Amino acid sequence: MASPGDLTVRSGRVKVARRLATRAFRAKTGEFLAEGPQAVREALTVPEAVIEVFATVDATERHREMVDHAPAWHVVTDDVVEAIADAVTPQGVVARCRSILTTLDVVDADARLVVVCAEIRDPGNLGAVIRCADAAGADAVVVAGESVDALNPKVVRATAGSLFHLPVAVEPDPIGVVSALRDRGLQVLAADGAGRTALFDEDLDLSRPTAWLMGNEAHGLPEELTAVADRVVRVPIRGRAESLNLATAAAVCLYASAREHG
Amino acid sequence: MASPGDLTVRSGRVKVARRLATRAFRAKTGEFLAEGPQAVREALTVPEAVIEVFATVDATERHREMVDHAPAWHVVTDDVVEAIADAVTPQGVVARCRSILTTLDVVDADARLVVVCAEIRDPGNLGAVIRCADAAGADAVVVAGESVDALNPKVVRATAGSLFHLPVAVEPDPIGVVSALRDRGLQVLAADGAGRTALFDEDLDLSRPTAWLMGNEAHGLPEELTAVADRVVRVPIRGRAESLNLATAAAVCLYASAREHG
Repeated sequence: MASPGDLTVRSGRVKVARRLATRAFRAKTGEFLAEGPQAVREALTVPEAVIEVFATVDATERHREMVDHAPAWHVVTDDVVEAIADAVTPQGVVARCRSILTTLDVVDADARLVVVCAEIRDPGNLGAVIRCADAAGADAVVVAGESVDALNPKVVRATAGSLFHLPVAVEPDPIGVVSALRDRGLQVLAADGAGRTALFDEDLDLSRPTAWLMGNEAHGLPEELTAVADRVVRVPIRGRAESLNLATAAAVCLYASAREHG
Repeated sequence: MASPGDLTVRSGRVKVARRLATRAFRAKTGEFLAEGPQAVREALTVPEAVIEVFATVDATERHREMVDHAPAWHVVTDDVVEAIADAVTPQGVVARCRSILTTLDVVDADARLVVVCAEIRDPGNLGAVIRCADAAGADAVVVAGESVDALNPKVVRATAGSLFHLPVAVEPDPIGVVSALRDRGLQVLAADGAGRTALFDEDLDLSRPTAWLMGNEAHGLPEELTAVADRVVRVPIRGRAESLNLATAAAVCLYASAREHG
């Protein structure tokens, strides 16, 4: 049975992991944290992603199958895991990981479904969209413009492991992303409540390779982005709701595409 | 220009409103709180729903159009609104309302789309499902079994006004709900990741009047409920995601129905 090693909340190794709570330190080091058994398990499936794992005695016992897959597995006291993790209940395990973010180059000419998130600010929303993109079989997610950091612990958690399943690219310039995707043969559909085309319109061909542009939760897509899209598409509102929230709108759009992609 | 009246955080009227933060007091009084301008505006569209509104000077100025529609509008200091509201930023206005919850009787033989939430525990999830049901044109939402209180302030907020748009019924017995809905001519589809029928299967007829059963976020639907459904339907997972979250799964199912209902 494992017993806690010599690491404390004051150990250098632990201090480094703790600093990954800040975006600046993540950017500087190119590292981030995966918290909880689901995220750590999925992280371990990505070659070279995990640097080291910190786990309590209990979590180590519960997740024996993971220990051999980790390059380093530190058994620590509860307070060490709690100090490192952002989550209130990190379930005893947290991994320090190398960034798995990529660039638009990952989207090749075979891509059939891509999601572009522009200016998404809420980590829960970005995480939910990544999870949904994974479920709908998207080839990649592109996080564009001034969006929340895709390696923010709350984003990682909200993806429920999906962050490690499909390529997530980061690109500063959303307009550049649109033209690059169109060059690769994708139609670009901007999802916007004020769109002239309804999602289920007969003349909207969702069987074509498609990039969906999803905008900010409060302000939607900026006009300069809807202007460069092939079409601006609204999810039809049948009742009296003002709008759908971002993650549910994304789910409806992505599954409408997935359905046509068969 | 309005100026704060004599109400303080110690006034009886304010104390009563504050107590509506607890489920027990909401159940006892049959009252609840609507917080923020969007919720209050929508509450005011429902006859007899609003008892009184508490608003800051600023909010009163900003929302002049609402004042005449409220049976009572108290201009108060910021600390009074903050004391009553559950939200960290209630945006200066909160209304004490009479319960607008109803029972299954509200679903008549003309109903084409009903959502039954069984054992949903997270207020954000229930609110998101109600909002999505509204958007998809559902006739009613039924909150069944041991679910979170639909009048919980976090639920009200997450519905983004939709709580006031369509009937929300509360029924303790989910199995009774299923048979009652079937008696009214609806097919009952249980949404479950392990369902044998995929959402886009050819032989699933979504043009029929349909009740969708949505289960607990962590444990799904209890077996005794999937057993009484006409079919157990899964949203197909194309990628490697383990599942969809409750609100996105509901969105995909409800919009699949809405699409067929034309």
